Amino acid sequence: MTKTIAILGASGYTGAELVRLISTHPDLKITALTGERKAGQPMAQVFPFLRHLDLPDLCRIEEVDFAGIDLAFCALPHATSQAVIKELPRDLKIVDLSADFRLRDPGDYEKWYGKPHAAPELQREAVYGLTEFYRDDIRAARLVAGTGCNAATGQYILRPLIEAGVIDLDRIILDLKCGVSGAGRALKENLLHAELSEGTQAYAVGGTHRHLGEFDQEFSALAGRPVHIQFTPHLVPLNRGILATAWVDGDAARLHEVLQARYCAESMICVLPFGTTPSTHDVRGSNFVHIGVVGDRVPGRALVVAALDNLCKGSSGQAIQNANLMLGLEETAGLMGAPLFP
Amino acid sequence: MTKTIAILGASGYTGAELVRLISTHPDLKITALTGERKAGQPMAQVFPFLRHLDLPDLCRIEEVDFAGIDLAFCALPHATSQAVIKELPRDLKIVDLSADFRLRDPGDYEKWYGKPHAAPELQREAVYGLTEFYRDDIRAARLVAGTGCNAATGQYILRPLIEAGVIDLDRIILDLKCGVSGAGRALKENLLHAELSEGTQAYAVGGTHRHLGEFDQEFSALAGRPVHIQFTPHLVPLNRGILATAWVDGDAARLHEVLQARYCAESMICVLPFGTTPSTHDVRGSNFVHIGVVGDRVPGRALVVAALDNLCKGSSGQAIQNANLMLGLEETAGLMGAPLFP
Amino acid sequence: MTKTIAILGASGYTGAELVRLISTHPDLKITALTGERKAGQPMAQVFPFLRHLDLPDLCRIEEVDFAGIDLAFCALPHATSQAVIKELPRDLKIVDLSADFRLRDPGDYEKWYGKPHAAPELQREAVYGLTEFYRDDIRAARLVAGTGCNAATGQYILRPLIEAGVIDLDRIILDLKCGVSGAGRALKENLLHAELSEGTQAYAVGGTHRHLGEFDQEFSALAGRPVHIQFTPHLVPLNRGILATAWVDGDAARLHEVLQARYCAESMICVLPFGTTPSTHDVRGSNFVHIGVVGDRVPGRALVVAALDNLCKGSSGQAIQNANLMLGLEETAGLMGAPLFP
Amino acid sequence: MTKTIAILGASGYTGAELVRLISTHPDLKITALTGERKAGQPMAQVFPFLRHLDLPDLCRIEEVDFAGIDLAFCALPHATSQAVIKELPRDLKIVDLSADFRLRDPGDYEKWYGKPHAAPELQREAVYGLTEFYRDDIRAARLVAGTGCNAATGQYILRPLIEAGVIDLDRIILDLKCGVSGAGRALKENLLHAELSEGTQAYAVGGTHRHLGEFDQEFSALAGRPVHIQFTPHLVPLNRGILATAWVDGDAARLHEVLQARYCAESMICVLPFGTTPSTHDVRGSNFVHIGVVGDRVPGRALVVAALDNLCKGSSGQAIQNANLMLGLEETAGLMGAPLFP
Repeated sequence: MTKTIAILGASGYTGAELVRLISTHPDLKITALTGERKAGQPMAQVFPFLRHLDLPDLCRIEEVDFAGIDLAFCALPHATSQAVIKELPRDLKIVDLSADFRLRDPGDYEKWYGKPHAAPELQREAVYGLTEFYRDDIRAARLVAGTGCNAATGQYILRPLIEAGVIDLDRIILDLKCGVSGAGRALKENLLHAELSEGTQAYAVGGTHRHLGEFDQEFSALAGRPVHIQFTPHLVPLNRGILATAWVDGDAARLHEVLQARYCAESMICVLPFGTTPSTHDVRGSNFVHIGVVGDRVPGRALVVAALDNLCKGSSGQAIQNANLMLGLEETAGLMGAPLFP
Repeated sequence: MTKTIAILGASGYTGAELVRLISTHPDLKITALTGERKAGQPMAQVFPFLRHLDLPDLCRIEEVDFAGIDLAFCALPHATSQAVIKELPRDLKIVDLSADFRLRDPGDYEKWYGKPHAAPELQREAVYGLTEFYRDDIRAARLVAGTGCNAATGQYILRPLIEAGVIDLDRIILDLKCGVSGAGRALKENLLHAELSEGTQAYAVGGTHRHLGEFDQEFSALAGRPVHIQFTPHLVPLNRGILATAWVDGDAARLHEVLQARYCAESMICVLPFGTTPSTHDVRGSNFVHIGVVGDRVPGRALVVAALDNLCKGSSGQAIQNANLMLGLEETAGLMGAPLFP
Repeated sequence: MTKTIAILGASGYTGAELVRLISTHPDLKITALTGERKAGQPMAQVFPFLRHLDLPDLCRIEEVDFAGIDLAFCALPHATSQAVIKELPRDLKIVDLSADFRLRDPGDYEKWYGKPHAAPELQREAVYGLTEFYRDDIRAARLVAGTGCNAATGQYILRPLIEAGVIDLDRIILDLKCGVSGAGRALKENLLHAELSEGTQAYAVGGTHRHLGEFDQEFSALAGRPVHIQFTPHLVPLNRGILATAWVDGDAARLHEVLQARYCAESMICVLPFGTTPSTHDVRGSNFVHIGVVGDRVPGRALVVAALDNLCKGSSGQAIQNANLMLGLEETAGLMGAPLFP
Repeated sequence: MTKTIAILGASGYTGAELVRLISTHPDLKITALTGERKAGQPMAQVFPFLRHLDLPDLCRIEEVDFAGIDLAFCALPHATSQAVIKELPRDLKIVDLSADFRLRDPGDYEKWYGKPHAAPELQREAVYGLTEFYRDDIRAARLVAGTGCNAATGQYILRPLIEAGVIDLDRIILDLKCGVSGAGRALKENLLHAELSEGTQAYAVGGTHRHLGEFDQEFSALAGRPVHIQFTPHLVPLNRGILATAWVDGDAARLHEVLQARYCAESMICVLPFGTTPSTHDVRGSNFVHIGVVGDRVPGRALVVAALDNLCKGSSGQAIQNANLMLGLEETAGLMGAPLFP
């Protein structure tokens, strides 16, 4: 029951991560890889670490014959994605890794991304891809919108707590420490080794990061009232990994119970023993999420920390988990590889 | 008017940093270096990066003739320091870099460090070494207690804001990102390159870090009422640097004004233009502090971020700045070197 | 046909790497894990990155019932290994990852390791574990001695060239760049992040590295005369990876032909197009070896460069490849995972 | 006797390093900084680590009034430099940090840089800037050509050995490990943190690196016959530092004597005790060079290793040392700062 796969935009990090994960997936086979600027090149040239695989060369999207393809992953840049997907066959299953279909409301999209959406009808159709919370919808979906990697990390902490009503909704602070691959393979001065290693700083400060659109949409829906968290990411000198530290008002022991109850049946999410917190070292290269809860010395305040790999569970691993559901495969197929340490 | 200096405990990172800074100081000359376990060794062996300097070999403390020494830096481990300083000549000027004399109240000391203080009379005499806030006391002091490096970073943000009454005292969250040298040259598994690089995690979670004793002492005194901030440090894979992100309730523009007014005459502290935040890259290896303020999208909430080099301004640079005051030298002598970038 | 596995010495990096690789191996199941100092602890505590796996707790070697075990990996420290293996059941299949059985000659062992061998009869029995060159012997062996990771990297370059007689045997220089995990989880000052990151240096200089014993044994046997290469490793700030640069006298194009011919049927070894050289980035976390050849501007001189992951192909991956052979499994089972990049 | 300085091309790493070093130089004062693309910006914006300094804003070269300037450092890109310098006042002292005036022979220049030189008459005038070997010429020069950073490192090892006739001139191999800042602030994929950290590889393989032009010119002149060394650099994940490992034929003890004799009076160059080798950690951020010699186990072969900071002694520090000579200042003024460790 092997399913055939196309990856549109395979020359970036999330595209390469899809190829990496699919290379040991028992039921998926890649039949097309696209990359506009690098069309014609073999993947071994674009990503020599994939040299051992038998892969199609990169081609242009218009060269792909979608007739025989069961599902396409779309790992294109934001904005490009909506234009491309609009032209794809309407019966093709698609997992989009860009930001284009995460926000359901066209007004929200325009607010956070600065221009009107080019495919609002698809926007309505798209299912938000946070697997553990939209599983049934994803199974039935044609178009799934992968979440932001920061947005996923924060939601794994906060959704169960908001839903259970155990934290103060007006006092949610999310301080993120993010690895550099989240910024993609872009040629920017601040992503150079010489500028980034050996130091750290905040970015998108003051509530301007676009993933806040996702937080607002999801948390407000859950709470049945507007919820606006405070969120600032920090760039730290590591390639993979997001550590989300949530500072919340609530009883730590109760928070831990809620998270444990919510995730005890989830194979990808591990709630650590009370009082311990996770490290990104322990999830690197894997599809796992580690979550820890600890009480602050100030009564009624708690710290909840989550760690995941932004390229895997935060992006390409999530995409494959969703594709597995959409294709009727075992949900965790190809995703149980252990993290790489050290 | 060259002053003669002894460094007790010169085989650790703060000791080496003192030597590095003094090597280009116009008025200080090192005449004794001690290191119990490495006594007899030349510094060039213990720290080959100091090879170009003409330095005395490491010796044991009892071998030092304190008669001709104007000031001793004490860079010994916590608890050792109080035992050693108790036995030093009572007229010797001392800057202690350990935690032993930071807390004025013996009860506080016992609470945070787990045992009674061995030299409570010296504890009373010691002046807290946060230069910009205790300058006159330091100038007159015989014994100055260097602050914790995390404690210094947080206080540079919060002292002016608490004093000016512009933030909610019960809603102060300090999320720190700390470089590894703050843990010293200790042989611990979590400090190995293979365990620490390429990942990040919280430590001393939930309000257990000892520098909270300093925050409580200082902030409560300033506010005239108990102040208990929330504070969790995170270990990030870089060698030097602390980035402190304070999440506070208050008007961001007002906070910026207060900080600018407080620091405009300080040569070591730079308040960035409103809306921008600092990077540890820009202070590495230097005695400078960069502070930035930005308003959150949630009205009435602000983010204040400070960056400094834990080994320099957070420890050995601060110690020399204080020694300059105690010895009647220019306060910034030997401390105006630019950061190292990249 | 699942085979049951014990790992002796599972609290170090090579032990953990064995567990990582076996976790997705279709035919191996771990039934015992030992660690003397950490006996009684769950692996999730010793290596939290393995938390998602259902593993036996660490125990002491004497607690293991070897009756039901098909094969034991021995990832113990050098010298300990020979003492332990001597006492194991004589019909237990063993892959030893230490240096204890790599040298066939007791005199050579004593020369390089500084004391007589404690189990010379086993030394004679052991098969040298460089899979691609001892495949048939390994298939029939009871005790296989894993190679040194540096020794493996150098041999992948040099064995075919020596055998084919295409390089000057008295002019072989091997300059290695080694990641830090090769030194294990030892608490040594030079392995601390603060000492190792952001710099590089040579170690074991001047032909004193113990892996020279392996080079001498293997190359002299191949050549039928003594061969003594020059070899100096350098420690570089990365966790996994060895880059071996061999400077040889010979015709580069001919060397490339020889290597291509030798490895074209090998699934784990990839010879790059002539004129290109490999990066450790492209093999990290995998069992693959990349080899490149380039001619120097000086006629008759060539550069051959090989890259592998010291913990995987250089140690634990090799061990599993050998175990697969010894257990009658497919040789590459569990070993085809793609490298992790970035 | 303060001298006024212009820096042309101050928005790159070598330009910033010049500013850093001059900021604590007792006799130099910067009066003009140029940067074509960033003209009009304050340096604090281009390099926030220089924020504490009172510096002129960046301007265009044509805006500089060279009348009052004693010396200009030219830190422009290769090829641009010759075009700019050609138009500068003929009596202006210039230290050029580009590659444009390193090769004396126009034919050599064209061979290595692929096009004819635009200012051959200046090429003849320029003095090669390896301070310790061209000191008198530099003192009298108007135009000094800074050396390549790799070229400098190799020459510190090899010049005395070639001159003394103690090594085989046809058997010189130089294996370099280079930090990333040597490639400048260029936006290239292979310089991104995600691509460069945690791995290593060779580059400019097979004798194609342009610094070979300098080696050939200098070594052949010294030897009185053509000398063509083998040289391959490797990119290692660190920001500053070059480690040069020379594999040579010669008597190690004799080599050590020659190097010690040659450098014993040099304040910037330290020959380590015989049998020990240097680390780039110990020279980072400084103008010092450390050199070590060790004998190989193969009789008559030796290893000589040198470490320096490519941005400082390899480029901007060298430039200031030369400027000091040209301006009649103390040669080491502003250059005795200790390395930064850790």
